[in-house]
Amino acid sequence: MLWRPAPPLVPPFAPLRLRLAPHRPTPCRLTSPAWRKSLSLSSHPAFRPLIQSTSRLFAAVDTHPLSLARRSYQPPYTVCKPLLLHTPRRLSTMVAEDFEAVLKGKYPGKAHAKRVVQMLREKGAATDGILYLEGRHTKMIEDNDGPEPFRQRRFFYYLTGCNLPDCYFLYDIQADKSTLFIPPIDPEDVVWSGLPTTIDEALKLYDVDDVKPTTEVASVLAQISAANPKSTVYAIANQVSDHISLDSFAAKDLTALKSTIETARVVKDEYEVALIRKANYISGLGHIAAMKRAKTAKTEQELEASFLERCYSHNAKEMAYHPIFGSGRAAATLHYIDNTRSLEGKQNVLVDAGAEWNNYSADITRTFPISGTFTKESREIYEIALKMKNETSSRLKGGVNYDELHILAHTIAIDGLLALGILKGDKNEILAARTSAAFFPHGLGHHLGMDTHDTGGGQNRQDPDKLFPNLRLRGTVPAGSVVTIEPGIYFCEFIIKPYLKDPVHSKFIDEAVLNKYWDVGGVRIEDDILVTETGSENLTNLPTAAADIEAFVASA
Amino acid sequence: MLWRPAPPLVPPFAPLRLRLAPHRPTPCRLTSPAWRKSLSLSSHPAFRPLIQSTSRLFAAVDTHPLSLARRSYQPPYTVCKPLLLHTPRRLSTMVAEDFEAVLKGKYPGKAHAKRVVQMLREKGAATDGILYLEGRHTKMIEDNDGPEPFRQRRFFYYLTGCNLPDCYFLYDIQADKSTLFIPPIDPEDVVWSGLPTTIDEALKLYDVDDVKPTTEVASVLAQISAANPKSTVYAIANQVSDHISLDSFAAKDLTALKSTIETARVVKDEYEVALIRKANYISGLGHIAAMKRAKTAKTEQELEASFLERCYSHNAKEMAYHPIFGSGRAAATLHYIDNTRSLEGKQNVLVDAGAEWNNYSADITRTFPISGTFTKESREIYEIALKMKNETSSRLKGGVNYDELHILAHTIAIDGLLALGILKGDKNEILAARTSAAFFPHGLGHHLGMDTHDTGGGQNRQDPDKLFPNLRLRGTVPAGSVVTIEPGIYFCEFIIKPYLKDPVHSKFIDEAVLNKYWDVGGVRIEDDILVTETGSENLTNLPTAAADIEAFVASA
Repeated sequence: MLWRPAPPLVPPFAPLRLRLAPHRPTPCRLTSPAWRKSLSLSSHPAFRPLIQSTSRLFAAVDTHPLSLARRSYQPPYTVCKPLLLHTPRRLSTMVAEDFEAVLKGKYPGKAHAKRVVQMLREKGAATDGILYLEGRHTKMIEDNDGPEPFRQRRFFYYLTGCNLPDCYFLYDIQADKSTLFIPPIDPEDVVWSGLPTTIDEALKLYDVDDVKPTTEVASVLAQISAANPKSTVYAIANQVSDHISLDSFAAKDLTALKSTIETARVVKDEYEVALIRKANYISGLGHIAAMKRAKTAKTEQELEASFLERCYSHNAKEMAYHPIFGSGRAAATLHYIDNTRSLEGKQNVLVDAGAEWNNYSADITRTFPISGTFTKESREIYEIALKMKNETSSRLKGGVNYDELHILAHTIAIDGLLALGILKGDKNEILAARTSAAFFPHGLGHHLGMDTHDTGGGQNRQDPDKLFPNLRLRGTVPAGSVVTIEPGIYFCEFIIKPYLKDPVHSKFIDEAVLNKYWDVGGVRIEDDILVTETGSENLTNLPTAAADIEAFVASA
Repeated sequence: MLWRPAPPLVPPFAPLRLRLAPHRPTPCRLTSPAWRKSLSLSSHPAFRPLIQSTSRLFAAVDTHPLSLARRSYQPPYTVCKPLLLHTPRRLSTMVAEDFEAVLKGKYPGKAHAKRVVQMLREKGAATDGILYLEGRHTKMIEDNDGPEPFRQRRFFYYLTGCNLPDCYFLYDIQADKSTLFIPPIDPEDVVWSGLPTTIDEALKLYDVDDVKPTTEVASVLAQISAANPKSTVYAIANQVSDHISLDSFAAKDLTALKSTIETARVVKDEYEVALIRKANYISGLGHIAAMKRAKTAKTEQELEASFLERCYSHNAKEMAYHPIFGSGRAAATLHYIDNTRSLEGKQNVLVDAGAEWNNYSADITRTFPISGTFTKESREIYEIALKMKNETSSRLKGGVNYDELHILAHTIAIDGLLALGILKGDKNEILAARTSAAFFPHGLGHHLGMDTHDTGGGQNRQDPDKLFPNLRLRGTVPAGSVVTIEPGIYFCEFIIKPYLKDPVHSKFIDEAVLNKYWDVGGVRIEDDILVTETGSENLTNLPTAAADIEAFVASA
């Protein structure tokens, strides 16, 4: 993260907001010669591809129709300089693409609609008709006058890119026409809440063919069904409002649409990858902030506070999942959520935290020493987890079998734990006994997208093989999907002690050696990786080497 | 806030956690002579009452049974020193009580249960029977494998003080016995989530007579109804699980319990006031952090980030409501929620933000100049809002009529706007025409407690008098209640322009003068105030004087 230039972040839906603002042709900090010069990168050969891509970006910004508006926007952070101040000692590969260039476009809702129809056809569905979806409706907090936190329905977002509440959508398959319905303007509400998104603005913001007020949903449905008396409406069960009738269609399919979108979502397009990239970029800044605070913080919640501060400052206000900040032995509790313990006397903190960017998730884990230096035992375990991550992710590419990567991670864990003496005996026998699940009890990873545990994957919770019930991603990994790789080694009493009492496993574990490692807690390292035809690309792009992690903490 | 010593904050439920920790009799930073000396307050007469109260606090800490455990706790922040660095120029009254001393006890759930029964009796209800309540159940996010954010049901919390999910409660009125039912330990869940609260721990944490696993709810209900065949069960409609049958009771009342608890919650006890005090203390630190960041921040979200960072660092992770960080004209949008705009070229920011502490809310608003100095126009409006706040809150005491305070605030607004020339004509005629609602369109305040807009108040949204439909607190204010006082003056086009077009009002408004004030945006000042028999006590305790506000921003 640190060796990558900060791209020009803009708030979500920036085009709309900026269009409404008066044009102020002040020089853009990102394109000014002074700023370019301040980079002072030319002397370092490693930065050359970066400079080339940055120049392309500047050119694109200069000529883009929104460039004047963009110039009036001041990015909410200091660009690039802190990156150079804290350059880690080992530089990983740099990513030349800039996610902001992609995100200048619209979320490809129409392309998604067409893709879903294509997949419905491949399934043999009679696709003469419409896709019908409702977004998340405003819900009030129980016994309270405030609304619940808003979280857009993912199936709706996939076809619209629209994050407004109380919306409806339909896609007329034969006419190839998508219509978004947004709430009409309520004058009383404008007094209290200001102007909502208008129809004209929505047409510019979202990749849909038409925008109408939600008061017209029923009449448009009636028109389409009357014009196509034999058509089918595809909708999602329990996501059709009581006041909406779909009975005028000849057929109603309430199952195929959801499962088809679930399948469609597995392979991401360029825009979706850019969203995940940006979520990773901001979350990475949050992880760095947490590491830098470790030496002065007294409690886990202070680290969480620093992570959130960075995400909010960059306008990523939704967390992809409840973050984990587990210090000492709490790191061995896989679903630890308290994040309230003292750091005093602890060796490490495990941080598993990721923000969303426009509904797309980052899911990143780093484990770091509170003092700035790993203890001998922690470093030993860290290196095993890192090898598990590096070896498995280096084998990722389209068509690879994820089960095999999971097994590979276990074999590396066994090799490492044998070398330390925590395990003893024959490595093949240990693998066959599944004893390594005592130390690595969860799956290697999962699909990532609008949900942190994204659609697809085919988990089998009933798998009789003890290594597999918790593995969320099974079988072939398709190119174009984004997956996590998140191996870990944990010293959790609740998990390990039953193994120590079971003669099938206890013969492979040296309890005397094991006892030196309980205070390591747990080490997990997790990155988000785009799977390509020929390999993979790490979207997380935050260092993992122990020395770099130590350098982050020490640089506070 | 700044002139008040930082009390020894401990995490929620600290007694349990501290009891489990090994005793380390290291010197407590709060009680060490060096620290006391470092206060260096003795030379300033204004700090004498503070020193006396602090000394009492130290004595209490030293002799308390938990003092050894307390000594081992290091507060997660720097105590007091930064307060002295940035002491505001004008010191308000100091509060001697220490909320932590009160919060060392248990939340008084049993006393609340008895009080509710007493109130039911006063209503003439046949109170031979039980009160039955269910806490909030775990809910999954739609189409996702994660849980929704947990928010305990307030009626349940009021009788239990228990913040665990999936719990049940009953209070046997005749036996005067309360029973809390908590989820049984699930060994599979322990492996992933660690040990949950046990029955023994719950007995120590919560003010209930008995704790049982939730598997026993049905059988205990059957026992009680069998033993008292003529008894009534009081429960809340739509908050009884499908698998729970209350039919074995002779009578079932699904309305009285909710309305009675709503009434009971209006007057707060000492423990509840301490919770609100602590929520205010932490939220105040957040407001100060936001002010201090104003000069360097580029966007509203950075100020929000600083506010949240402070709240999280002090373990207040739930916001009482969606915070408002509105800069420039956005401050005039009363329900502004975006918090994403640039601060560039804006005069002021209005921050309305408060955290919860153990479900009790703070609700604080401050308006401050981004530059550190109010413009002439902003200062003029600020002083009117401040006078509205000071004059109305100084009249607060038990039995006062809140409608009259609201009218008083309007008369002060009219006086001030007349003096500036924004209004013109006779003040009584302006008040009679309700023209001041163009600038102060909302109510003066509301009850505060577990809900930000707490139970009680008797709002009448249909009131034909245009000053009153938005006033949430009507009529007599009881001693012991906590209310907000939050006057404001706004320059909102959507609100004011219709007044300018209406001859009833336009004759009282000088549009030429008004036009100089649009960029002030809006000024609101809001404190949380405990109403007493003889007056009131400000629980917010954060400066409001313009000079102090400017000093905060300037001290960044």
